[in-house]
Amino acid sequence: MHTRVLSRIDVEKILTIQDTLTSVREAYMMFNQGKVVQPPIMSIDVPEYNGEVDIKAGYSPNKEIISVKTAGGFWNNPKQYNLPTGLAVISLYDAKSGFPVCIMDGTLITEYRTGAAGGVSAEVLARQDSSVVGVIGAGRQAQMQVVALKEILPIQTVKVWSRLKEQAIFYKKIMEELLGIEVLPCSSAEKAVVDSHIVVTTTPSKKPIVMNKWIKPGTHIIAMGADMQGKQELEEAIFTRAKIVVDSLQECIKRGETQSPIKLELIEKSDIHAEIGEILLGRKAGRVNDDEVTIFDSTGMSIQDITTAYMVYKKATEREIGSKIRLI
Amino acid sequence: MHTRVLSRIDVEKILTIQDTLTSVREAYMMFNQGKVVQPPIMSIDVPEYNGEVDIKAGYSPNKEIISVKTAGGFWNNPKQYNLPTGLAVISLYDAKSGFPVCIMDGTLITEYRTGAAGGVSAEVLARQDSSVVGVIGAGRQAQMQVVALKEILPIQTVKVWSRLKEQAIFYKKIMEELLGIEVLPCSSAEKAVVDSHIVVTTTPSKKPIVMNKWIKPGTHIIAMGADMQGKQELEEAIFTRAKIVVDSLQECIKRGETQSPIKLELIEKSDIHAEIGEILLGRKAGRVNDDEVTIFDSTGMSIQDITTAYMVYKKATEREIGSKIRLI
Repeated sequence: MHTRVLSRIDVEKILTIQDTLTSVREAYMMFNQGKVVQPPIMSIDVPEYNGEVDIKAGYSPNKEIISVKTAGGFWNNPKQYNLPTGLAVISLYDAKSGFPVCIMDGTLITEYRTGAAGGVSAEVLARQDSSVVGVIGAGRQAQMQVVALKEILPIQTVKVWSRLKEQAIFYKKIMEELLGIEVLPCSSAEKAVVDSHIVVTTTPSKKPIVMNKWIKPGTHIIAMGADMQGKQELEEAIFTRAKIVVDSLQECIKRGETQSPIKLELIEKSDIHAEIGEILLGRKAGRVNDDEVTIFDSTGMSIQDITTAYMVYKKATEREIGSKIRLI
Repeated sequence: MHTRVLSRIDVEKILTIQDTLTSVREAYMMFNQGKVVQPPIMSIDVPEYNGEVDIKAGYSPNKEIISVKTAGGFWNNPKQYNLPTGLAVISLYDAKSGFPVCIMDGTLITEYRTGAAGGVSAEVLARQDSSVVGVIGAGRQAQMQVVALKEILPIQTVKVWSRLKEQAIFYKKIMEELLGIEVLPCSSAEKAVVDSHIVVTTTPSKKPIVMNKWIKPGTHIIAMGADMQGKQELEEAIFTRAKIVVDSLQECIKRGETQSPIKLELIEKSDIHAEIGEILLGRKAGRVNDDEVTIFDSTGMSIQDITTAYMVYKKATEREIGSKIRLI
């Protein structure tokens, strides 16, 4: 028996944002239908090298697949090794035998499925006439979020702010070429946020960057940066006036943007409106009027990796992409 | 940058039981020197297919390596898919960047490092004139335990008992050819145990197979089977008269053979003499006379995978074994 190996280049041939939006939608619904086994994330800190490794595993009885993703976050990588901060490997195992059917680059899948998460949230939580996005941070995820939003909404203008001015300029160049939209680097976070219909936060910040008074009625906020204890991008007060939606309640109150207002007792668990899968399944409402402020807080779930990686694996098999090795 | 891929056949070219004894000794010492980060094991049950997947990960700051092992135990495999029950994949990541430096078959490494664990225990806990081994179970681990013991002690005779008679006969054939020793299939567990200097248990049993009254003074017992809640191979009373040594106190009282006597309150945590690394480091005594009954209880630790897999990876690099792929 053989194991399929898919390099980043192989995955790149297959992965599209449209397909990823479909697989992430499916993932969220499966999660809230109880159709997935997801043990708590395993984390290893590597303080010596300013890094961490997260292991996210899950089992989909429907797809008869177990997925294990090892994802590194090493903040010295770009400067010291000319490598991206985030590198990931996903392996898929046949749930009938434990046989490793596929080992693939997980870096691209993580980027796409995280981008698609924001897009899926915008379908049910953003005003459908939203055309201006304010983006905090100008890294890879700041790109992916807008790529996904552009599939969902009539986005015309992106206002971007980064701590590093050059990075915002680089972002403008890349995104204007890629999507043919207008990108305006801003001199402050405030300028990027004010009058944006959608606000996306993508930094590893540990204190608030986006202030409550900047947020106008009708805004949808996609809080992607916070995924560990201590991380925060939004002033907590925003939560007291917003409809709060999370991917996983359990994870977000512990490690997501929602951790801070919960800790300060500005909101309680019961103030969280829904997990996004509940909305997609029609069990709870999404946006109900044009004035609501909505927040989508996501820390990322293994089931997004499973559905996306499985989709890539199936297409690779059909199209005979990648190499086949005798591993075991 | 490239990722080295080592198939089972590649690993087989490199792995020896001597080297594995060295790497497991090193692993146990590193564990008790606090030189390893080992998060709790992550487990996914697959009851639909009589299987489970365990994920054992760890970080060795010394070696600057993070290891992630995904190991399946699927009990229908031999009959339904002509595959071994246990299949494993190990991936190694550079702790400086999170880059995946090597992906390898972990099945053989798991077999060897588990076998070597018993051997290392025998060095410090068995009578050094031990020549007769009683083995309960006749599967792959029953082989590996004796292969390792033969490196350490003057083993001449193996008495083996298996629930399946044919398997004991197959075991005899394999082991006599492999090691040139005498193997006697026994008609009962009692016959295999009585008068053996070393007793090795390797089954997935959930009730005691080895009785207290069969155990003579001076016996060393290697309890390898129990590694999950509910598993048991030894009558609990043996623990009340034995010097008890474990690999990891925390894991063994929860998931090892030691769980039963602890649960029945026949022994307390403080009755456990040592973790094996403490003995190897000279912090505690091993066997001190010829009459002691000693028990080594092991549930297996990630650090054994790290040291052994890293050794294999280094040798593969030196000898240019395996293939190099551009994964990420």
